Amino acid sequence: MTRRCIDLGERGLVGRITEILEIGERDDCALAEDGERYLVWTTDMLHRRADFPGIATPWQIGWMTVAVNLSDVAAMGAVPLGLLVAAGIPPQTEVSFVEEIFRGMKGCASRFGTRVLGGDIDSHDELTLVGTALGRVEKELVLRRMGAVPGDLLCTSGTLGSAGAGLRVALAAEEGGEGIGDPGLRALTRRLLEPSPRVREGRALALSRSVTSMMDNSDGLALSLFDLSEASGVGFLVREDEIPVDPLVGRVAEDDDDALDLALTAGGDFELVFTVRPERIDEARQACELTVIGEVLEERVMVIESDAEIRALEPRGYQHMMRL
Amino acid sequence: MTRRCIDLGERGLVGRITEILEIGERDDCALAEDGERYLVWTTDMLHRRADFPGIATPWQIGWMTVAVNLSDVAAMGAVPLGLLVAAGIPPQTEVSFVEEIFRGMKGCASRFGTRVLGGDIDSHDELTLVGTALGRVEKELVLRRMGAVPGDLLCTSGTLGSAGAGLRVALAAEEGGEGIGDPGLRALTRRLLEPSPRVREGRALALSRSVTSMMDNSDGLALSLFDLSEASGVGFLVREDEIPVDPLVGRVAEDDDDALDLALTAGGDFELVFTVRPERIDEARQACELTVIGEVLEERVMVIESDAEIRALEPRGYQHMMRL
Repeated sequence: MTRRCIDLGERGLVGRITEILEIGERDDCALAEDGERYLVWTTDMLHRRADFPGIATPWQIGWMTVAVNLSDVAAMGAVPLGLLVAAGIPPQTEVSFVEEIFRGMKGCASRFGTRVLGGDIDSHDELTLVGTALGRVEKELVLRRMGAVPGDLLCTSGTLGSAGAGLRVALAAEEGGEGIGDPGLRALTRRLLEPSPRVREGRALALSRSVTSMMDNSDGLALSLFDLSEASGVGFLVREDEIPVDPLVGRVAEDDDDALDLALTAGGDFELVFTVRPERIDEARQACELTVIGEVLEERVMVIESDAEIRALEPRGYQHMMRL
Repeated sequence: MTRRCIDLGERGLVGRITEILEIGERDDCALAEDGERYLVWTTDMLHRRADFPGIATPWQIGWMTVAVNLSDVAAMGAVPLGLLVAAGIPPQTEVSFVEEIFRGMKGCASRFGTRVLGGDIDSHDELTLVGTALGRVEKELVLRRMGAVPGDLLCTSGTLGSAGAGLRVALAAEEGGEGIGDPGLRALTRRLLEPSPRVREGRALALSRSVTSMMDNSDGLALSLFDLSEASGVGFLVREDEIPVDPLVGRVAEDDDDALDLALTAGGDFELVFTVRPERIDEARQACELTVIGEVLEERVMVIESDAEIRALEPRGYQHMMRL
């Protein structure tokens, strides 16, 4: 029987490819040796229909392209050195639209202390933007997905769910063909379309020497925890009541369960999820505004606790290939 | 009036973008500081319809994706450190087809002493492969597009025109719906679909300290010379009779003029074009099999000489955006 990619799903396909390429540990970035440091680098493909809601401005499209890559560099505790961008552009696109995309890229790179250094332009049926970010981190400071130890505290930066809520607002606005008048709802779409990669926080956490494992939560908190679990060979207990759901999410969610679901599975928040040695939690707090949302378990189970009830955490989240 | 990308052309659009991003010198790779060395890195977007003839096997598609990026690293005189690949894959693609692509990537990377270290998988309407290559070169050895000095010898590695001739063979085979029985014609398509980036040669030329400027000729020799001319602020005299047209090109070309045209403008050969200080031409020859095809002029003119007749060299070659 012929097996097609859609049957395998994104994560299944990635598994086959990493086997062919003999890639060992998977992290947010690939690592290359550089004396006492690692070069870390990452690439991310975004395209018009799947990744950018209709209401996204070209400037926001550019910003996102840079932001998602810087988030991966941040997740390694690295300092970004620069970015490249390969852009596939429909030939009939207005030049001013393309210029705005690149101004958005420049804006995001510059906001986080780095630059777009070059790239490639090509024609394409669908607008396709592939960013690549390069960073550098001392070997003794690098933060990886593996390293979590039972008893460590499970933490997240920032608040969760607002990007997922922002996507609902964006899709509703597209359908209705109307602008978004309400400032709170507009703020949610900005969380989606102008994410702030945690570059400063990731670096500060690395320097704090308190973190044992880390990644970004681009596909949602739940899937990230499954990735950390696999890399570290541990389990997680998440305390539902401690999850820092963004207060604005309530404006969009149907109820508390729905809000929690957005925070756990919607993705796009580009926060850091990481584990901290309990005796160094103060150092971690000085490095980054964080919330302790659970702990690392020796047994490889994934559970979520609320009102003394414990249930299994489901591996749901954003998977590109399966969306189609 | 609304200006569209197709009106501006690839090179026009790249000009606008490099202005926005404040990119100064343009080279085959972007440069990042690394103490006494530079990190060099490059990205290239390829897609099914525009870049891979129908007869290309998935293995060849993978090989090409890696080869075009390694060629840019070679053109800087750098040692490759690794590659990343972002792949946009139609969800209905057979898994075995994708696996073959990645085996081809691995084959090419490994053939030139490096590895694919990671990447990103996404679904896309059209198969789209974006490679990124990273390399490293000592600052005192780096070879750039600027640096050619009047009186320098203009050189090329290898032979030219076979990739362009191979494309004709491939397109004819596609139209006829037949295989390619003739070994000579098959060899031409392999030059097109399995190019050999000049990684060893580029590095040896850098170490020879004989080269003053260099780039690869991916868009064809003529356009490459215009790029070198602009970067170095010099002109070129090319001697038509010295251009090393691949002998197999005669099997496909209509006449000698057509064969020359393929060698000058068809692109895809992935040879190195470079300038050498006359007193060090022997060192350059030891580093790389080369042909002296002309010389660097003080005046910024681009001319080609045959039978004592001198005419202008036209800036024709492969430009993606203008092809559609």
